[in-house]
Amino acid sequence: MKLQRLALIGCGLMGGSFALALREAGLVQHITGFSASEKTRQRAVELQVIDQACTSVAEAVQGADLVLLAVPVGAMHSSFAAMRDNLQPNALLMDVGSTKSDVIEAAKATLGERLGCFVPAHPIAGKEVAGIEHAEATLYQDRRTILTPLPQNSLRHIQMAHAVWTHIGSHVSHMTAEAHDATFAAVSHLPHLLAFATVNAIAAQQQSAVFLDMAGPGFRDFSRIAASDPAVWRDILNANKAEVLRQMVHLRAALDQFENALLAGNTDALQQLIQQASGVRSAWTLQAGNACNTASED
Amino acid sequence: MKLQRLALIGCGLMGGSFALALREAGLVQHITGFSASEKTRQRAVELQVIDQACTSVAEAVQGADLVLLAVPVGAMHSSFAAMRDNLQPNALLMDVGSTKSDVIEAAKATLGERLGCFVPAHPIAGKEVAGIEHAEATLYQDRRTILTPLPQNSLRHIQMAHAVWTHIGSHVSHMTAEAHDATFAAVSHLPHLLAFATVNAIAAQQQSAVFLDMAGPGFRDFSRIAASDPAVWRDILNANKAEVLRQMVHLRAALDQFENALLAGNTDALQQLIQQASGVRSAWTLQAGNACNTASED
Repeated sequence: MKLQRLALIGCGLMGGSFALALREAGLVQHITGFSASEKTRQRAVELQVIDQACTSVAEAVQGADLVLLAVPVGAMHSSFAAMRDNLQPNALLMDVGSTKSDVIEAAKATLGERLGCFVPAHPIAGKEVAGIEHAEATLYQDRRTILTPLPQNSLRHIQMAHAVWTHIGSHVSHMTAEAHDATFAAVSHLPHLLAFATVNAIAAQQQSAVFLDMAGPGFRDFSRIAASDPAVWRDILNANKAEVLRQMVHLRAALDQFENALLAGNTDALQQLIQQASGVRSAWTLQAGNACNTASED
Repeated sequence: MKLQRLALIGCGLMGGSFALALREAGLVQHITGFSASEKTRQRAVELQVIDQACTSVAEAVQGADLVLLAVPVGAMHSSFAAMRDNLQPNALLMDVGSTKSDVIEAAKATLGERLGCFVPAHPIAGKEVAGIEHAEATLYQDRRTILTPLPQNSLRHIQMAHAVWTHIGSHVSHMTAEAHDATFAAVSHLPHLLAFATVNAIAAQQQSAVFLDMAGPGFRDFSRIAASDPAVWRDILNANKAEVLRQMVHLRAALDQFENALLAGNTDALQQLIQQASGVRSAWTLQAGNACNTASED
């Protein structure tokens, strides 16, 4: 596989790392880049992440056979709209968003006959620090990338998407967008919400300073993800709210079981509930490919 | 400070480590030990954790100037009752339980005029493995121990308790039993319950295998404490249920705020909620003395 031209829409950590990885793997000849910030565009050129800075999305995607959309969720819709008329019919377009149904909806509303170019992607990678300065070619190595192809995608587009991520060291899985969003609501988005809520519940109490002073490593690990970036997580929770609220129903049912056992003084039921959780969690191990070093993208 | 005789009631990880630490610090001359299990008693002698195995609590505490009660919560009441008539008037008696109000209640109901001997203690230390085999003299080093003294304690008893833990390397804090139980309900017991409930909520769904397969390091850290020992945590949650249920009310209020913001599509409110949590958690650091390597005692 050899590509002539990559267009990078959004020159941050995720996009910049993708560009560096493709260049290092020798997959692309030329990289154009767009960022809404002129400073970021210039920095991306200085750091040799992109070859050419463009002042519009339309200009950047001109002639590109691969387009990576790596902008905040809020800028997806306008970016799709801005590129539609300049996208080559055979170009492969991918995003890197943590939620999929909402991005697909934006693509459907804007891309018209170019919808088939878009293969939605979620690379489960990141860092605690954002920005082009922290981009690195190895960000996606040994990480998992989930593709949620559309019925409109050609087999060629899907295979190409698979090949690109595989070439830069990522383990590729395919899911439906619905399964993707339900899965990450359960194992990532709701746990983030719970960690946020736990910290807020403590902070709301008069004795919060004493409480936090006594907190140990259990609290440290449980609440680590509560330190995540507010703007990123506002967007993720909001974009996936239907699934997050669905998971909340399951969680509240599980909480009720504990609360009922405590209120009834039913220690047998209490032990059974803990035994189930402890058994499932003890048997669980992190799958190779799911590891990452971020608080915001897992 | 020099003690003649330590009586160890319960020869497990916590008690065994205390005995080893006191012996290593040269604080005691002779250690008697009681365990309900004959095998454990023998093993404690073989491992030189105790000098003399006793077949009853009453026999073990005879002539002891220091008694450590390190039995499961369920055996506290009967142990207090069994030692009362043989406890020396000047002896210092301490426990190592994770909850305090319930232990104090048991002491009040059983110890009679010896109640003043009992200085309730909670050393925040432990390991993921239990049993005398894993006991080590350094378990309490650089850990925090919380004392919740009673009005019946003499200053001498309190000072002695403080001195014993300090001598074996622990950082000693004093709190009321109520503040202790509220604090640990907030920063340890409720987080454990939430981790258990989150795992159970996932396990209850048909797609749980897919969900767990995709879970990343955020889930790993958030749910680590869900693997804790079921019998230990049944006892802790049950013993501290009033405070745990009180914390649950705060948590449910915090969850409602998130749910309402999501339902209303109020992204500003959502961001503010996350910002608060992220700010508090980012500013928090684990206090020296609170560190420990256990899933069950923090």
